Amino acid sequence: MTEVIRSADELREKVAGWKRSGMLVGVVPTMGALHDGHLSLARAAREQSDRVIVTVFVNPMQFNNASDLEKYPRDEAHDLALLDSEGVDVLFAPGVDEVYPDGFATTVSVSGITEPLEGAFRPGHFDGVATVCSKLFGMTQAGRAFFGEKDWQQLQVVQRFVRDLNIPVRIIGCPTIREEDGLAMSSRNVRLSATERATAPVLHAVMQAAASDMRAGKPVQTALMDAQAELLEAGFRDIEYLELRTVEGLRPAPDLSQPARMLAALWLGDVRLIDNIAV
Amino acid sequence: MTEVIRSADELREKVAGWKRSGMLVGVVPTMGALHDGHLSLARAAREQSDRVIVTVFVNPMQFNNASDLEKYPRDEAHDLALLDSEGVDVLFAPGVDEVYPDGFATTVSVSGITEPLEGAFRPGHFDGVATVCSKLFGMTQAGRAFFGEKDWQQLQVVQRFVRDLNIPVRIIGCPTIREEDGLAMSSRNVRLSATERATAPVLHAVMQAAASDMRAGKPVQTALMDAQAELLEAGFRDIEYLELRTVEGLRPAPDLSQPARMLAALWLGDVRLIDNIAV
Repeated sequence: MTEVIRSADELREKVAGWKRSGMLVGVVPTMGALHDGHLSLARAAREQSDRVIVTVFVNPMQFNNASDLEKYPRDEAHDLALLDSEGVDVLFAPGVDEVYPDGFATTVSVSGITEPLEGAFRPGHFDGVATVCSKLFGMTQAGRAFFGEKDWQQLQVVQRFVRDLNIPVRIIGCPTIREEDGLAMSSRNVRLSATERATAPVLHAVMQAAASDMRAGKPVQTALMDAQAELLEAGFRDIEYLELRTVEGLRPAPDLSQPARMLAALWLGDVRLIDNIAV
Repeated sequence: MTEVIRSADELREKVAGWKRSGMLVGVVPTMGALHDGHLSLARAAREQSDRVIVTVFVNPMQFNNASDLEKYPRDEAHDLALLDSEGVDVLFAPGVDEVYPDGFATTVSVSGITEPLEGAFRPGHFDGVATVCSKLFGMTQAGRAFFGEKDWQQLQVVQRFVRDLNIPVRIIGCPTIREEDGLAMSSRNVRLSATERATAPVLHAVMQAAASDMRAGKPVQTALMDAQAELLEAGFRDIEYLELRTVEGLRPAPDLSQPARMLAALWLGDVRLIDNIAV
């Protein structure tokens, strides 16, 4: 049975026992509302660690938008049942006061790689991510941590601060899990209407087609402009970015002369979707 | 023999071996130019840990003044001899490129407690302290870290971010070590001329007298004003602060109704001195 722990002190004791037995701890940080994408991370953790902790914490510090925070889906009973079926050892689900007690005053900030893309549209978001992940690595003392490539920029940010602060955890990126029609799994997808849900897979299809065109020699900027027009035509709105970036530093990639990633953020109804693919 | 290690990878391997044997690691972060104050920390670490690492790194990120950084005394051979005589296991002395390699982009910041006193006169100083200490805790994986009370505000800042980021290290503050005439030991003291060195102990004497007056009922602000006048009369210049603050939150303390600390920073010739005492 997956054990639910809510206090950092109790988690520390649990982990200390494991560590004394020489066990390697794997952690999967999540915000709950678990789907197959999360479960694929739990499975990777299960395969590559002796004990697995999945954390569920909807982190207010990484939400720049109060309404998005409020609407973020939560269903702990369902999450617990899923984690139990995957053989996860601990569901760590602390309250906000446990993570940010009175007097809390510390921020972990990453410069450079946090500035474009999500950073440009979600001020303070990556400070929240880096700070809470630092805390979760400290609390769990995990030797391995598993993140989805769906949040590609987040994965780069986490790898950056872990290396910079010499935190003894290895960050492992895992492939994006998609619905059969190509839509990247996301906890926010449940907020799409039936019509929007039918439109949503167009994002991945258009990105794949643009990537294919680029590989066939179409200029990068032309391919991106054409893709934007197709997305607006399909019913998406407010394309915040649809860009080609270098894989690691996320610098603008004007062509395919180095490994590149196409990344997108846009809105469908009142749901913000993101996706990214290798090019 | 104290072993000198310069690479974080090599240190990690050394520490991993200790940890496998269940040993508790103590660390004493320093900027070198070691004196009896540092050695008292090494002795405390020796008593309270199975293995002791003293780090020597003159951290450019915590110097707001290029000249102060340049003039900061360095004598590694002497430091090593002292640490060897104290039975320290490892002197970790990384180069700047080892601590801040190309691409380094992360800052640990503490708000609130970092703003007055040193924070007001040394912009960015505590970001540098918190960031490098986070790194040293990660690199050494120490279970205990020893800091001098001489840098009282620094001690509070380190305790704050360690608690906030759930870093699994216990911070232990150790009493300020003084010369026989009362001058707080500091690596910067060697830069005092003979005349200045003769004047320097007046700082501690004046602070003690002011504290005594306060305890006897003299109003706090009057006692501080009188003390400032005496210091300027004695030959100190540019008193940056001489204040009474609450012990933990470092909030202004208008009276002795709660535990308080008197803290001072001022100049003697071209050397900046700091000190603090319980009141």
